Amino acid sequence: MTNDLLTRLAAVVGPHGLLTDSSDIAPYLFEERGLFHGRALAVVRPGSTEEVAEVVRLCAAEGIGIVPQGGNSGLCGGAAPDTSGQQILLNLSRLNKIRALDPVNFTMTVEAGVILQTVQEKADEANCLFPLNFGAQGSAQIGGTISTNAGGAGVLRYGNTRDLVMGLEVVLPDGQIWNGLRILRKDNTGYDLKHLFIGAEGTLGIVTAAVLKLFPKPKDVQTAFCALADLDAALSLLSRARAATGDQVTAFELIPHIGLAMAATHVAGVTNPFEAEHDWCVLIELSTSRDDGALQDTLESLLGAAMEDGLVVDAVLASSFEQRRGLWRIREGIPEAQKHEGGSIKHDVSVPTSSVPEFIRRASRAVIEAMPGVRPVPFGHVGDGNIHFNLSQPPGVDKETYLKEWARMNRIVHDIVVAMHGSISAEHGIGQLKRQELAHYKAPLELDLMKRIKAAFDPQGLMNPGKVL
Amino acid sequence: MTNDLLTRLAAVVGPHGLLTDSSDIAPYLFEERGLFHGRALAVVRPGSTEEVAEVVRLCAAEGIGIVPQGGNSGLCGGAAPDTSGQQILLNLSRLNKIRALDPVNFTMTVEAGVILQTVQEKADEANCLFPLNFGAQGSAQIGGTISTNAGGAGVLRYGNTRDLVMGLEVVLPDGQIWNGLRILRKDNTGYDLKHLFIGAEGTLGIVTAAVLKLFPKPKDVQTAFCALADLDAALSLLSRARAATGDQVTAFELIPHIGLAMAATHVAGVTNPFEAEHDWCVLIELSTSRDDGALQDTLESLLGAAMEDGLVVDAVLASSFEQRRGLWRIREGIPEAQKHEGGSIKHDVSVPTSSVPEFIRRASRAVIEAMPGVRPVPFGHVGDGNIHFNLSQPPGVDKETYLKEWARMNRIVHDIVVAMHGSISAEHGIGQLKRQELAHYKAPLELDLMKRIKAAFDPQGLMNPGKVL
Repeated sequence: MTNDLLTRLAAVVGPHGLLTDSSDIAPYLFEERGLFHGRALAVVRPGSTEEVAEVVRLCAAEGIGIVPQGGNSGLCGGAAPDTSGQQILLNLSRLNKIRALDPVNFTMTVEAGVILQTVQEKADEANCLFPLNFGAQGSAQIGGTISTNAGGAGVLRYGNTRDLVMGLEVVLPDGQIWNGLRILRKDNTGYDLKHLFIGAEGTLGIVTAAVLKLFPKPKDVQTAFCALADLDAALSLLSRARAATGDQVTAFELIPHIGLAMAATHVAGVTNPFEAEHDWCVLIELSTSRDDGALQDTLESLLGAAMEDGLVVDAVLASSFEQRRGLWRIREGIPEAQKHEGGSIKHDVSVPTSSVPEFIRRASRAVIEAMPGVRPVPFGHVGDGNIHFNLSQPPGVDKETYLKEWARMNRIVHDIVVAMHGSISAEHGIGQLKRQELAHYKAPLELDLMKRIKAAFDPQGLMNPGKVL
Repeated sequence: MTNDLLTRLAAVVGPHGLLTDSSDIAPYLFEERGLFHGRALAVVRPGSTEEVAEVVRLCAAEGIGIVPQGGNSGLCGGAAPDTSGQQILLNLSRLNKIRALDPVNFTMTVEAGVILQTVQEKADEANCLFPLNFGAQGSAQIGGTISTNAGGAGVLRYGNTRDLVMGLEVVLPDGQIWNGLRILRKDNTGYDLKHLFIGAEGTLGIVTAAVLKLFPKPKDVQTAFCALADLDAALSLLSRARAATGDQVTAFELIPHIGLAMAATHVAGVTNPFEAEHDWCVLIELSTSRDDGALQDTLESLLGAAMEDGLVVDAVLASSFEQRRGLWRIREGIPEAQKHEGGSIKHDVSVPTSSVPEFIRRASRAVIEAMPGVRPVPFGHVGDGNIHFNLSQPPGVDKETYLKEWARMNRIVHDIVVAMHGSISAEHGIGQLKRQELAHYKAPLELDLMKRIKAAFDPQGLMNPGKVL
């Protein structure tokens, strides 16, 4: 039966669209962190939505599970098959056409396999902005960013991927194609199906194309690195910055002293902009499509007032593109720098923005109490309440021994997150990695509603089996 | 059995919470346009979420349908029971507490029965903005605006109600309470249940409370009324305005000559700002929380360049609050003015923004061909692609005779909307009024998915029966 299925799949996607040799398949099973080691019956690479639909129909008829995959840059194993070797890995890379770009609508219609950076570049050429951005943007594909509702550094101003999607095309678990590629800013004709598929990690259907929202292209960008009087000052500064700029704060990233010090020590090109030592800094970036040159004055006035009022104790403003890149290198260098400091146990969590300082204090105390010497490095998107609460190992401890404490430390941190009404996965999703954590923490009623939806859409359970639920 | 149920309901909500006399019930069955004449077994007015849940449990046990109602200002009959007299009307007005307001988070947690205008006022007192606004804001309640995903004049900048909701509390059809009152800007832990209930018009559960997003309060508002060279110039002006202002265009409303003339003739306080006659005008409003006073210059430069380039042929800028109100009165006066011109057959439709001019031309030609003398008055939220395509009767025709053509004219207009990939209900929803139109136009696959969700959440079909699906 399996050989028969493979023959029929090859007939649909062509000889180059079906990979069955283990050496051909291997690259699709590899993921950077090496956490997930699955096997697959075959890798299928369809070239069109109709081919995706036909592949799904053939698999559905045989009861074969399908694991959709885009750029394979996810961090929770959502794009990796299980170890049975009985699932099809369906890679969307060949669906890579930009179907339409309309700068009057501020919309772009793209297929799932288009790489995020390509979308950014095409928008830019049309004098527009597609604001989603994060580290893996050179390999992440739009279908994957939609299926994981990816976040990143621009969420404060522009929202998550969810907020940037106007319409979707989805192949359903029975192989029907739902054409929801609406280019409408208002449409109140029944339940919003689009939002069900966004962030569902391929468990309800396969996203094959999307209408994305664009924005006017920024003409003026201003960036500053600020040393704060204390952690609470971050929130006051953010509120002031939103008001003073007309909500044009496009990044507001928290950086602790330990993160800055690690980056300055280990990452080429990173220098500490301050001579004095400050417990907490923020990287703040403003941008606007206005070209009246007023943004620099706005930033200077904002920071001047914040210094007078004792919120900010020192600040550096980037006066060139290169200086701006230098400030961002500090922020982006933290995860890399942590690798040089031994093992890092990671948490991608969020709490209400106003609770961030209390969360950091409580969680830091708790992990240090549980493991004296552990070094919390809480950094990231404080403006969204989203902190990457990473724990560098105590100096001198064996790395492998330390990493065995992953689950225990997760439980301590996630208990505090949930007690503070937060989320145990702010932007990375669930995949395989956090499935047990989800089952542990999610309210039973909410899990029940999710299961009802899953059963209503995918009664055979063939869409990305073993992920999320 | 019915009397027994009523006795038990009274025990839950107290004697003042249950109305059974037809004279007491009547006001809840009345709606302004007089289109829907239903009956109800009783009006139940619970005072808390727990009481709502208990009422739902009692009704579910007896198989009694429930019609949720907020401010009863909806335009599609979604809050009116059917004529059987066997349904409970559940009015949420007593759930009127503001549970929390956090200006650091920019969030407010409110119960379903809080009136929209109260939310606006409370936000304002906290130096924040809740941007949702529309004509019925003095009576519409938050639960209703969420259940209908209400739009209005601020959608261009701030989105629909859907975009302004961060969390929900919902009583499910079996009486369980889903506490989804998250105050999180990022949460990727499974399917987004919130978006299913928003815009579901009470058919999947009853919204009892919500976390709403606030924004920095505008400090500077600039308003202009512009005569356009032609209809297409509206789109060019909008693109330029978004870019030039840093996306701070908060209203962009199309007004045809006939609408301006009708308002100037029939509505007290409306005057035509121009001596010459112009086919098309737009009301444009910019607002920002920046207080540097630069917005007026921005608007003047924008309009100056648009006049030089021949997009705008004349313009009036409001130089006082009173002048600003005067310009808005033109826009708001159009529906009222139309009442003085006889019958009006209405369409609340949207198309991709870039298709608005073509839609207006095609639909106008088609209706005039079908009924010579009919007078299209297309106006409204052109920036969202949402046009209120109202048709004033031919002069001299009998109003009742004209209104009998409602369905025929709807079909002509909606056929064009659907052919242009638009929506037959942009912001008012479906309710009872457009249920047949939805069944006619919606793709069968999409209706099927909606029915699967309905069956998964409300297998007895007791939540707002006969609405939407």
